[in-house]
Amino acid sequence: MRMYDIIMKKRNGGELTGEEIRFFIEGYTNGKIPDYQVSALMMAIFFQKMTEQETYELTMAMTESGDMLDLTAIKGCKVDKHSTGGVGDKTSLALTPMVAACGIPVAKMSGRGLGHTGGTIDKLESFEGFNIALTTEQFIENVNTIGIAIMGQTADLAPADKKLYALRDVTATVDNMSLIASSIMSKKLAAGADAIVLDVKTGSGAFMKTEEDAFALAREMVQIGKNAGRKTIAVVSDMDQPLGRAVGNALEVKEAIDTLRGQGPEDFVELCLTLGAQMLIAGGCAKNTEEARDKLQAVIEDGSALHKLAEFVDAQGGDSKAVYDTSLLPQANIVEPIPSKEEGYVSKIACDEIGICSLILGGGRETKESEIDLSVGIVLEKKVGDYVKAGEPLAYIYANDRQKMEQAKERFLGAYTISAQKTEEQLFIKGIVE
Amino acid sequence: MRMYDIIMKKRNGGELTGEEIRFFIEGYTNGKIPDYQVSALMMAIFFQKMTEQETYELTMAMTESGDMLDLTAIKGCKVDKHSTGGVGDKTSLALTPMVAACGIPVAKMSGRGLGHTGGTIDKLESFEGFNIALTTEQFIENVNTIGIAIMGQTADLAPADKKLYALRDVTATVDNMSLIASSIMSKKLAAGADAIVLDVKTGSGAFMKTEEDAFALAREMVQIGKNAGRKTIAVVSDMDQPLGRAVGNALEVKEAIDTLRGQGPEDFVELCLTLGAQMLIAGGCAKNTEEARDKLQAVIEDGSALHKLAEFVDAQGGDSKAVYDTSLLPQANIVEPIPSKEEGYVSKIACDEIGICSLILGGGRETKESEIDLSVGIVLEKKVGDYVKAGEPLAYIYANDRQKMEQAKERFLGAYTISAQKTEEQLFIKGIVE
Repeated sequence: MRMYDIIMKKRNGGELTGEEIRFFIEGYTNGKIPDYQVSALMMAIFFQKMTEQETYELTMAMTESGDMLDLTAIKGCKVDKHSTGGVGDKTSLALTPMVAACGIPVAKMSGRGLGHTGGTIDKLESFEGFNIALTTEQFIENVNTIGIAIMGQTADLAPADKKLYALRDVTATVDNMSLIASSIMSKKLAAGADAIVLDVKTGSGAFMKTEEDAFALAREMVQIGKNAGRKTIAVVSDMDQPLGRAVGNALEVKEAIDTLRGQGPEDFVELCLTLGAQMLIAGGCAKNTEEARDKLQAVIEDGSALHKLAEFVDAQGGDSKAVYDTSLLPQANIVEPIPSKEEGYVSKIACDEIGICSLILGGGRETKESEIDLSVGIVLEKKVGDYVKAGEPLAYIYANDRQKMEQAKERFLGAYTISAQKTEEQLFIKGIVE
Repeated sequence: MRMYDIIMKKRNGGELTGEEIRFFIEGYTNGKIPDYQVSALMMAIFFQKMTEQETYELTMAMTESGDMLDLTAIKGCKVDKHSTGGVGDKTSLALTPMVAACGIPVAKMSGRGLGHTGGTIDKLESFEGFNIALTTEQFIENVNTIGIAIMGQTADLAPADKKLYALRDVTATVDNMSLIASSIMSKKLAAGADAIVLDVKTGSGAFMKTEEDAFALAREMVQIGKNAGRKTIAVVSDMDQPLGRAVGNALEVKEAIDTLRGQGPEDFVELCLTLGAQMLIAGGCAKNTEEARDKLQAVIEDGSALHKLAEFVDAQGGDSKAVYDTSLLPQANIVEPIPSKEEGYVSKIACDEIGICSLILGGGRETKESEIDLSVGIVLEKKVGDYVKAGEPLAYIYANDRQKMEQAKERFLGAYTISAQKTEEQLFIKGIVE
């Protein structure tokens, strides 16, 4: 078998066999097939697409290219959750204690990643002393005793995906549905859960700008999961404006805590209930959505979800007092309102621009080496459909550097569109693919 | 400017500017842009094509990526000739003495190359002592005094094309018309001639299998030449069977000498007259085709073309006695007929298979390091349309190794199709593009 023939076959519109896909993934992972042949193949795939079978074979080849976690020592049905990412996405922070409190074991590997804010494990470091470096034994022990553990990615999960993604990123071959789906799913499958609930975002703050694309990606991923024998469900949700109100690491932790106290923003609560319901059903803790939502609401109302978060923070060495007193979380030195210059209805928020404000303030990483400032960010006062008077705050900005703050403020104001007419309300949950 | 944006633009169907093309060619030549980005761009070009303007810009960027020969010290209009290659293509050997005898200066750089037989300079080494390593001064001096000089490629002509072609060759991105045209033309333009006559082959022994593709390539190359301010004409000719009768290095030299003696095979003579006429007209030595053909026929009839070959071989240290006595050329030890197994009309010859027979016998290079056996090859007795009886020779095989000979014979027989009906005769010269 020759890589040249594989490129030629795909270029000419052929369907690659599982054997050909494995040959290429194995050869690329072990360095026998050079980058320049793989990038040519990726571009040929961009134009010729991949069939469902090819996408599945590619996913499995990448899944099996490195370590695969064995979670059989954990009792119960392990349900993993994955979000395609967006601005203000603090879902794991609130959702995992909720489902854990309902009896679903949460065993999660999380990355730091690049982005507008840090990843889940960066955010968790807002709890002083929080330790993400667990041994596999501690990790499994914690899940079995308290129901949750989240650790940094230590195992070498799907190294082929890592190498391939880095190459696609510099050769303009990222945006192909099959390649995106196989990249996400290979990591999820290697992470060992029995069921996977996917949160696919759509809108100006998401990778998938249109609902059509988001549903297409959702369908591809659900199909891969099913072909791999895992229960897989995708929720498509709105990311045309930031999720909830807080954007920034510690600010998002606070919003997640507020949510567990029953004081969360409407859209974020809805997302947690929707995703949580699917997780409970997949994990066998509820028969239907209604029962699942009741259970999730009950663990908020009786405080057990909040308590679960505290238990979890405690078990990983963090200061759980902050769960009950959020003033103990990292605090920014400067807090200022951003007043509106106009009067009218907020008709549009350029969501990714709000993310960039967080990045400017120091809340995210521009390169792998960047240090994150956990305390900074934005808390929105006005979201799409809200009425605002001139001079009334659109948001509060949390900063530690006045120059960066001014820069972020200006960018923030450019992201808002104020209109005389109220625009039609958009559905927040766009649909479920299963 | 970033290579990423250039790939993305082409991927999305945009037209690259001259500045963008130069950025990529310069960056690639000096090693600042990596292979993996360039191969992705090549695949994007394969799918999205290039406009006439882009093709021209790419050609010029490659032309100017290395040395450019200055032939102004040579008197007269320098006319270069290039063939896209085929089986039994010994055109330069006969044509250059013919046009030189008519007064067109021939200053040619030639490569060895890989293929079924060697390149022109390998074939010329059939003359004992022939020296292809001239200094630039000797080269120009020889052209000015005797009218011909051919040397091995010493200057660093179009290094960008060399690097790019090697990459395309292993990434399934060779067969795009614009890329093929710019590759050929960049080398021709850098070689400094005032006018260029192109011999574009079509058929089973050519790179362009269909006439449609051959004409498309011809048009692209002529357009580039014109845009670059050089007189450029392309002749599209048949390569659905070997050119002439001889395939093999010294055997082809002998056929070229026979042609200069007025005893050449019909198709080969026609090709030399057609290409030669275009060269004479381009070089200002003839007003029209009729006058040009008369002049070319005259230099054959009066022996001056044959004499010119002897002068040229002599001037480069070769034994010119072989021009008048071809038994002095390298001779194979074994010469055997290949008898036909059937009776009927030769209806088809798989041309590239005949080339492979020459390669099997040792007449070509499989790798850059292969040594060529100049004496071996095939001389066809029957070509398409000829009638053959069972047992009558289809060809004679010239070999130095009985095992290789048997292997080549078997392959040879598989390349011939014999039918009861005579097939319709095909035009040999398909057309001229100017």
